[in-house]
Parts: sequence; structure tokens; C-alpha cells
Amino acid sequence: MDNQRKKLIGIDIGGTFVKFALMDMTGTIEKNWMIPTDISEKGKHIPAALCTSIRAEIAKDQLADVLGIGIGVPGPISPDGTTVVRAVNLDWEQVPLKEIIQQKLGIGVVLLNDANAAALGEMWKGAAQGKENLLFVTLGTGVGGGIVLNGEVLNGCHSAGGEIGHIPVRSAENRLCGCGGRNCLETFASATGLVLTMREKLKNAEEPWAEMAPQDIFKAVKDKNPYAQATLEEFTDILGQALAGIMNTIDVEEVIIGGGLSEAGDDLLEPLKKKMETYVFPQIKQHFSVKKAQLGNKAGIYGAAYVYLTSKKEAAHSIK
Amino acid sequence: MDNQRKKLIGIDIGGTFVKFALMDMTGTIEKNWMIPTDISEKGKHIPAALCTSIRAEIAKDQLADVLGIGIGVPGPISPDGTTVVRAVNLDWEQVPLKEIIQQKLGIGVVLLNDANAAALGEMWKGAAQGKENLLFVTLGTGVGGGIVLNGEVLNGCHSAGGEIGHIPVRSAENRLCGCGGRNCLETFASATGLVLTMREKLKNAEEPWAEMAPQDIFKAVKDKNPYAQATLEEFTDILGQALAGIMNTIDVEEVIIGGGLSEAGDDLLEPLKKKMETYVFPQIKQHFSVKKAQLGNKAGIYGAAYVYLTSKKEAAHSIK
Repeated sequence: MDNQRKKLIGIDIGGTFVKFALMDMTGTIEKNWMIPTDISEKGKHIPAALCTSIRAEIAKDQLADVLGIGIGVPGPISPDGTTVVRAVNLDWEQVPLKEIIQQKLGIGVVLLNDANAAALGEMWKGAAQGKENLLFVTLGTGVGGGIVLNGEVLNGCHSAGGEIGHIPVRSAENRLCGCGGRNCLETFASATGLVLTMREKLKNAEEPWAEMAPQDIFKAVKDKNPYAQATLEEFTDILGQALAGIMNTIDVEEVIIGGGLSEAGDDLLEPLKKKMETYVFPQIKQHFSVKKAQLGNKAGIYGAAYVYLTSKKEAAHSIK
Repeated sequence: MDNQRKKLIGIDIGGTFVKFALMDMTGTIEKNWMIPTDISEKGKHIPAALCTSIRAEIAKDQLADVLGIGIGVPGPISPDGTTVVRAVNLDWEQVPLKEIIQQKLGIGVVLLNDANAAALGEMWKGAAQGKENLLFVTLGTGVGGGIVLNGEVLNGCHSAGGEIGHIPVRSAENRLCGCGGRNCLETFASATGLVLTMREKLKNAEEPWAEMAPQDIFKAVKDKNPYAQATLEEFTDILGQALAGIMNTIDVEEVIIGGGLSEAGDDLLEPLKKKMETYVFPQIKQHFSVKKAQLGNKAGIYGAAYVYLTSKKEAAHSIK
């Protein structure tokens, strides 16, 4: 196969859409598209739909140039890389996706968790370009994380590497997390957690509560609303302290913040970085950066394609 | 050089003694000895003393069989592996130890932090044999840590990998840490922290305080002293929660507890493991073990010798 013509496919399976991209080896997207995610019958039609869509969108001779496919999925991947252990949004349990797609298309497949894919994507083409050691944090409905060390994702022995949303926070509160735990980081540091903290501050002050979104809270901070200010202070203190603890453990050089809350930009990132500076180990202080993610919902397809490149064994195996 | 005859030297530089071991490639110690650590004049005599001792203890023809030397030091190593950034107990700042020893002896040298050396030692010859992903925690005067992922130490971008003693703990207390921070994990989860917690419990209850050592507290727990019980409860809760947060981040399979407090054995390890089970992410729960370190103060020399084996570039370079 002519090296110049080699291609990669990156796929990001979400609960609503499956996103695809065909790109060259340097990450230039030649074509991208998406299909709705069919989660009926325990999501059993997804793998076939994915292959059908690839065959429909990519001409046969072009498909022959595809070196490999990386697939990001919203759930943990077995440590051997073959199976989606569980993906609640797809209604999947133990789906051997790697083998299914490889057999249907005759192309090598690498699976990874979607937060890990986004971390790699930001490293390859986004905010962390040129870095090999980073922590990607997604602050959305929940809190997710992806850790890259020496250019490779830390998947962990039980596929729980980077599950930083479930770091327990010492608190007098009793916030129930979706994982069954109490006071997990994501019960405080997600969009949901932010709103809940604001509501509790108002309630404690016997102030009226009107339904509000995170952006309303950031706006209220600018308007010097004391409850919003106290909410952001608590939010960044809890998150900054947890991230500092992670830095003291894995000591990466870059923290990338993605997810819906990152849209607040410096209104969030500046106070967060200050808190982290307060809490990190002296030899790290002032030697790391905190940046907003750049690729938005494209991070996953970039990272999925890229992981194929880094899984050298696979690549060697697939080059015919 | 005949492969069977190849040897390794492991060295562990401590604030009081420098420990040495000559071993074969399988880790069987053929000779071990130690010398006092001369920290006068900013510890500048240490490197020469170390080489003199090696030449005095190992015959010339035997020294020719030494493939490499690993040295564990009580401080951070520069990310490029050449320099001891700082070692408070030796009064060292920026000592290019690798080059000094290599030049004096003509043998390849690898440096690593002493907690990282102990982690590798326990993996090679101690409690974590057969594992490649582990967290080593040392509970002594302070709290240290070493993380091994896929058989290799995580040193970090600023030599702060595994500095888990400085993970900040959310607390209403205000315990000053040696690093300058407040409420670092080691202010609660070290021997010093344990005693301080007991003292505060007695003080709050207006009970008399008599100077006591950690082992007195463990004995008082057995005697059902309520203050000692509450102290151990708080100690294991804070430490167990922090370790669970680490597990949710790096997801290793084994936690090895060393240092003076580990002498309490199951009196400490059982309640600690229970706390960790409470706080870890569901998919890790019941899939990790917490064990007492086995090698005591020999872990460092084993790990120092072993790191030479794993630093393949170095090994290739040194084989003449």
C-alpha cells in the first residue's frame, strides 16, 4: 500500500449520534458524517449500521487504503482491548465490538473509552499539541477524565483509569452519585453539581430559587451576586483541590478542560488554576498549564483515529 | 561478558546509612553491606565514599562483571534521570550523581527516588511479585508513594509522580505540612498524623494526654479505648478515601503498604481495605488487594538494582 495514500477512520459512538471521519495519516479530515444511534433491542443493530454506513460513504478502492479504525465508546473497554464492558447510553453489556467490526470490514480495529479518545484527540490536534503527558477533564452533566502518559492512554487494570469523576470528596454533604457512591467529585464539579450548590446556597439564605443553568450562574458571578460568587468559589475549590491531588499523583504537564462548562472559558479557568496553584506540590507549582479544550465534539473522532497509530502492534499486524 | 556471570549493584542512600547489595541478574544477593552517610559539607563526600566502598568490597575481576548500578535517593530525580534535584536529608541540591558515579567506576548508573525504588523492589522480590501495576505507600514519619504502571515507575514531568503524601485533604483542620501546604495527606496519615489525631481527640474530651507512640494507639484500639478507636477510624477514613481516589485515577491492581505503621499489620490493613472498598469505583471494588510490604528496608536496594534491568536503553548501552 502506498504510504501517502493510507487512511484512518475515527468513530465516536454517542448515545444520540455516531460520528465518523475519514482522514489521512496526518489527521486531515477528508470526509466526515454521522448517523443516528439506534439503541433499540439493546443496541444490537449499532455494529452492523456502522459498517453499512462506512461502505455507503467510502468507495471500495478508498476503503482498501484504510489502515485501521479507532472507535471511541461511552463506556469502559476491557483491559485486553477487545470488548465494551458496558455502555449505559447504548444499552450494551459485554459487546465484543473489535472482533465484530474487524470481521465485517476486514480492517484492524482499536477500541477506547470516549474520554480517553478526547484526551488523545486534544493531544494530536487540539489544545495539548506537542505534549505527551496530560490530564483531560470533561465537565458536563457528569465529570469524566482521560489520562495520557508518555503519549499513551492509561486505561487501567479494570478499565477505570482516569475515572476522576468518582474521586470521593470529603464533605459534610451527602450527594448521591450515579455510580452508587456518595460525594463523588462529579456530584460537585459537574454542571448538575454547580447548579445544586447554587440552589443550596440560596436555600440556606432563604432566598428564592428560580431554575437556572450554569451560564446563568457565571453571569450572576459577573454581576457580583454573592451566592453565585460563593458557589463558584466552592466549585473551583473542590475541583481545584481534586485536580491538585491528581497532579501530585501522576504529575503531568498539562490539564485540558472540556465539556459544556468549559464554555465559560477564563471565568472558570482562571479561578480554577489559582486554586490548583494553592494546592499542588511546590515542585509542580507554576510548571503546568490549564487550558480549554479546542476540538469540541470532534475530539473523539480525532483521538479514535490517533489511537490506531499508537497501537503499534495492531498497526504492524494490519499492514499487509 | 558471560551472561551467567553478569551482576547488578543496588544502592539505597539514606540520611543515616548507605546500603549496598551485589546481586546476580535473578536478584539473589551475593553480598550486602552498608556505610554511614557523611552529610558534612553539603554531602559532597558521599559520591566518592560510595565508589571507594564498592572498590573495597568487590574484587576487581568481579566488578568487571557488573552490568549496571541502580541508586535510590531520598529526593526527586530530574525527568532526564541524570540529577538529584534535591535531597534534604543529604543536604543535596542539583547533584549530577549519574555522571559522577559513571565516570568514577566506568559502569552505567540509573537513579531513582527511594519510594519508587521500594515500589519496584516489592514488585520484583516482595509483596507484589507477578504484578505490573501497583501503588506502593510508605507510612512513616511522612507519607511517600511510588506508582508502577506496566512494570515501569511513574516519575512524572516534574519528578513529583507518586507524591501522594501531598494530596490535599478537605478538612476543617489546619495542619501545616513540611512542604509548606496545609492539610496534606501526610499530616493525617503518617505516624505523626496518627499521634496528633489521638492527642486532639483527648484534648477535645478534656482527657489527659501522655506522650504515646503509634503502637500504643493500636494497643489501645484492642483495649477498646474509644479515643483510640475514633482515631483509627478517622485515620483509615482519610487514608482509605485518598487511596480510593488514587485507584479511581490510575486503576492499579495492588496496593502495598510499607513504612513503620505497616508493622501494625492487619490491625491497620483490614479497616483500611474496608474503607477503600467503600470509596472505590464499582468496577474496581473487590478486584484489588491491599498487602503489607515484605522487604522492609531491603526494598530499596532490590528496586534500585531492578530499575537497571528495566532501563533497557541504558542496559544496551552498557553491554560491551
